[in-house]
Amino acid sequence: MYRSHTCGELRIEDKGKQVKLSGWVQKIRDKGFMVWVDLRDRYGLTQLIFDDERTPKEMMEKASQLGREFVIQVSGEVIERESKNPNMPTGDVEILVSELKVLNAAQLPPFTIEDETDGGEDLRMKYRYLDIRRNPVKNKLIFRSKVAMEVRKFLSEKGFIEVETPVLIKSTPEGARDFVVPSRMNEGQFYALPQSPQTFKQLLMVGGMDKYFQIVKCFRDEDLRADRQPEFTQIDCEMAFVEQEDILNTFEDFTRHLIKAVKGVEVTEFPRMTYDEAMKKYGNDKPDIRFGMEFGELNDLAKNKGFNVFDQQELVVGIAVPGAASYTRKEIDKLIEWVKRPQIGANGLVWAKFNEDGTLKSSVDKFYSEEDLKAWAERTGAKAGDLILVMAGDGHKTRTQLSALRMHLGNELGLRKAEEFAPLWVVDFPLLEWDEETNRYHAMHHPFTSPKPEDIQLLDTEPGKVRANAYDLVLNGNEIGGGSIRIHDKNTQAMMFDHLGFTPEEAKAQFGFLMDAFQYGAPPHGGIAFGFDRLVAILGGQETIRDYIAFPKNNSGRDVMIDAPARISGEQLKELNLKVTQ
Amino acid sequence: MYRSHTCGELRIEDKGKQVKLSGWVQKIRDKGFMVWVDLRDRYGLTQLIFDDERTPKEMMEKASQLGREFVIQVSGEVIERESKNPNMPTGDVEILVSELKVLNAAQLPPFTIEDETDGGEDLRMKYRYLDIRRNPVKNKLIFRSKVAMEVRKFLSEKGFIEVETPVLIKSTPEGARDFVVPSRMNEGQFYALPQSPQTFKQLLMVGGMDKYFQIVKCFRDEDLRADRQPEFTQIDCEMAFVEQEDILNTFEDFTRHLIKAVKGVEVTEFPRMTYDEAMKKYGNDKPDIRFGMEFGELNDLAKNKGFNVFDQQELVVGIAVPGAASYTRKEIDKLIEWVKRPQIGANGLVWAKFNEDGTLKSSVDKFYSEEDLKAWAERTGAKAGDLILVMAGDGHKTRTQLSALRMHLGNELGLRKAEEFAPLWVVDFPLLEWDEETNRYHAMHHPFTSPKPEDIQLLDTEPGKVRANAYDLVLNGNEIGGGSIRIHDKNTQAMMFDHLGFTPEEAKAQFGFLMDAFQYGAPPHGGIAFGFDRLVAILGGQETIRDYIAFPKNNSGRDVMIDAPARISGEQLKELNLKVTQ
Repeated sequence: MYRSHTCGELRIEDKGKQVKLSGWVQKIRDKGFMVWVDLRDRYGLTQLIFDDERTPKEMMEKASQLGREFVIQVSGEVIERESKNPNMPTGDVEILVSELKVLNAAQLPPFTIEDETDGGEDLRMKYRYLDIRRNPVKNKLIFRSKVAMEVRKFLSEKGFIEVETPVLIKSTPEGARDFVVPSRMNEGQFYALPQSPQTFKQLLMVGGMDKYFQIVKCFRDEDLRADRQPEFTQIDCEMAFVEQEDILNTFEDFTRHLIKAVKGVEVTEFPRMTYDEAMKKYGNDKPDIRFGMEFGELNDLAKNKGFNVFDQQELVVGIAVPGAASYTRKEIDKLIEWVKRPQIGANGLVWAKFNEDGTLKSSVDKFYSEEDLKAWAERTGAKAGDLILVMAGDGHKTRTQLSALRMHLGNELGLRKAEEFAPLWVVDFPLLEWDEETNRYHAMHHPFTSPKPEDIQLLDTEPGKVRANAYDLVLNGNEIGGGSIRIHDKNTQAMMFDHLGFTPEEAKAQFGFLMDAFQYGAPPHGGIAFGFDRLVAILGGQETIRDYIAFPKNNSGRDVMIDAPARISGEQLKELNLKVTQ
Repeated sequence: MYRSHTCGELRIEDKGKQVKLSGWVQKIRDKGFMVWVDLRDRYGLTQLIFDDERTPKEMMEKASQLGREFVIQVSGEVIERESKNPNMPTGDVEILVSELKVLNAAQLPPFTIEDETDGGEDLRMKYRYLDIRRNPVKNKLIFRSKVAMEVRKFLSEKGFIEVETPVLIKSTPEGARDFVVPSRMNEGQFYALPQSPQTFKQLLMVGGMDKYFQIVKCFRDEDLRADRQPEFTQIDCEMAFVEQEDILNTFEDFTRHLIKAVKGVEVTEFPRMTYDEAMKKYGNDKPDIRFGMEFGELNDLAKNKGFNVFDQQELVVGIAVPGAASYTRKEIDKLIEWVKRPQIGANGLVWAKFNEDGTLKSSVDKFYSEEDLKAWAERTGAKAGDLILVMAGDGHKTRTQLSALRMHLGNELGLRKAEEFAPLWVVDFPLLEWDEETNRYHAMHHPFTSPKPEDIQLLDTEPGKVRANAYDLVLNGNEIGGGSIRIHDKNTQAMMFDHLGFTPEEAKAQFGFLMDAFQYGAPPHGGIAFGFDRLVAILGGQETIRDYIAFPKNNSGRDVMIDAPARISGEQLKELNLKVTQ
């Protein structure tokens, strides 16, 4: 037996007990006549004491030779500490060691195993197993498992059945690029790894499973933007005999429960907003509504007043920055520089100060009277003390740029509070979006999303205007979940494939099994999928997912710890009937 | 809203309520003046009634035109049934339908959606979504999810953290064949899909996670024997600061809890047996101990009595078949035929009847006296009324053949009762096993298993005799779990790789990260993994796993429903720098 207690367990009530502990040496203080060791395991720290009055000489020597991260086992008596540490759960006691055994020595780790470490990102990834010893990383992984457990508990209690869907499936041309897996037993053929279990969960509904969920790994072979992983985890859900309203209600309860269970925060409101409204008010289909700064469109107020820059543009739009009328010229210039960066790409900003004394002053006073500026203030919701920032240009682009500025200011002004949770349903997404590159319409969600019945008539004439029974759940400016009511009859599905540019033969080859299934009694159904990595990070109050993944890959899709991917043997390639061409 | 209640919910107490139900048409009885429909969903069946007194004419017509598996929605009043059906939870009531809506018509399914279906295996696999509608399949999937939930609850309560390990990892030459995944971003390089998360869970122990588990998909590109799947699910567990005894105790509790929670059966005993003992007593390292028929070795009793057939062989071994002394010549001949089949490959059987009257009679009376046979009876544990069956030949082969016969008889005699659970720990497995094909030793479990300290000295001289700290949990004749105490220091691990024929360079290239990790303070650790598909099947009282998998693959590794694997486009191959050579 390696231990009688963990390192986080002993209290003053245990005084006098003989105990055995095992763990890692966190810290050693050696005063010659006395040696203190902080012993660490997953559960906490316990102080060990050796002193030359009570500890045999050889053990004193052995203790003073211990190094950081040595794995040791000790036996001893729980005694009361002379100077207690109220910040440590075990801080009232220490162990007077009577037996010391080194279970494994340790080299000096390449970075310190402390809450704040000196190791850079690359080093910490290479030695991820050491990084995991650090509380911030360890606690994030424990938090993740707690969230997963709560997800399962809630959904199980609501009658959802967790069903495992296959990982070795078939490549489809729609969506992102698939990872493929050559099949040795079926020469020249490949499996694909799922981007989501979409068709399988729909087939489970056709199969009468009624309520399905799964926490499941999904895969996308995409060029990795920052904070994207080639393998990621989804909470995948589907329900039969439901309308959009049923799904929204169910997953509102779900999200409310999660936030309460893991953060202790009560969220009451789940407001809803159409896609059009979100784009108009926030320039963004996943607005952070923890703070205001809603867009005010100024076309009627700002055009045709002699200011050419505005006159030529499609859209003039502004926001009011609370309390920023006092910004210096330098501070405003910094914002102008910020929006001009290539990542944002705006031409500049027009500003107007709504001073505390009620006067208004702008960078375009030549063209606009104080009356004009007052109208701007009213439109953007600016109050005395606020700064109005205005952009102009092409509609979609300008909204996107102003949205980025709004988020930037939200961060700068501390309006995006990690412990505040503001969910939002965005509904009525467009069914299709035009893709300039391929010169055709793509499904905005996926080809299985149903159009709103009242819009179907527009499919032939104005396909871009057809709205879908699709919804996203947004939390604090991040899309945490998205879903739709699916198509459940063969004809609509065939029509959809047709509009997406599939020939009937292609549609049959790729998705014939699904369209066949719809002929044998498919119920109306719909669902939602949550990005689990992102959800956990946001619940944890962070926006980067990497620390919530035990063994993440870097931006080139590499696992630098195990050094994967790697070359495989010629024999393996031969068995797979493959040749590497470069 | 599609329904106010499910089809399994209504009782006599609901009489008079207006309800709305949705589901599938299970059955229609049309008497002209009256139509009954059984409406089905996941939760049960409810009878609908239409009659020409109370139902409008058009609805009567519509009802009589419904077909099996149509998806319909009805509204109506809950009324008391005239002839109640006590076998049906909703059997006291029926719905007098006032509104009928066909949500989706259905073609005639290719097989009947009944508990006993007329569909063959292939057809049911192609239309798996229809097969899932059948109670036996649906209930198995629900049972699986229930077992998974109990696994997670138990382990979480015991402090295990569920950590997701990566699916895209690195190919290793040890073990079975890997599935590989070409990397587009890292030209000419491949990921591999994990055969188990073995090294990752060990790194989590090095990382201080202390207790880890995961229900996780694993992959093996092997020629598929019956009832093997290329992707399968494991309950993977690992603990730090443990000895074999700690793991055995923990997972004894775990298994006991599971069987109690999902089957309501109390299992008290978890006997232990060494590998050597299991092979000697049952010819098998995963004996079914729900019944006896232990082997009796007869070398000293049966050789040198003039019967040449025995004299020439390494081993003479027998079992006593309870109550089978009354077998006719024909019945015995059938058994002899059975063992001679190529799958078993035995030469034949010698038999001896221990008659009810106490006399003994055998097929080799010419060579053995009744006294001799009495000694056989004593050795095999035969009592009056039993039949002794004896085989002779090469030791290992003969034991395997007799074990197959023992299991066959166990099935024939109904001794392997589905509702009885007899677990068994098999311990002290050999560390290495000789592989005739490659002419070298292989790790019997895997290269990370630790040798018993007292046997290490034999590694150079008699490597085949070294025992490992390895154990299997056997349930009803199936290995449901296996694990070991791992090596946790670099030198022992390097020595192990050396014995397995790795050069130091190969060991470093493949497992350098693990051996590095052992240098930074690795705790003693060990674990176990359960084959989840098999475990669920056995708990469900079945021995075939396929029905417990939602979308299984066939024996060629194909998903015949979606038709995967399949060819991929030339463009995809080009992006991956790959060429198919055949």
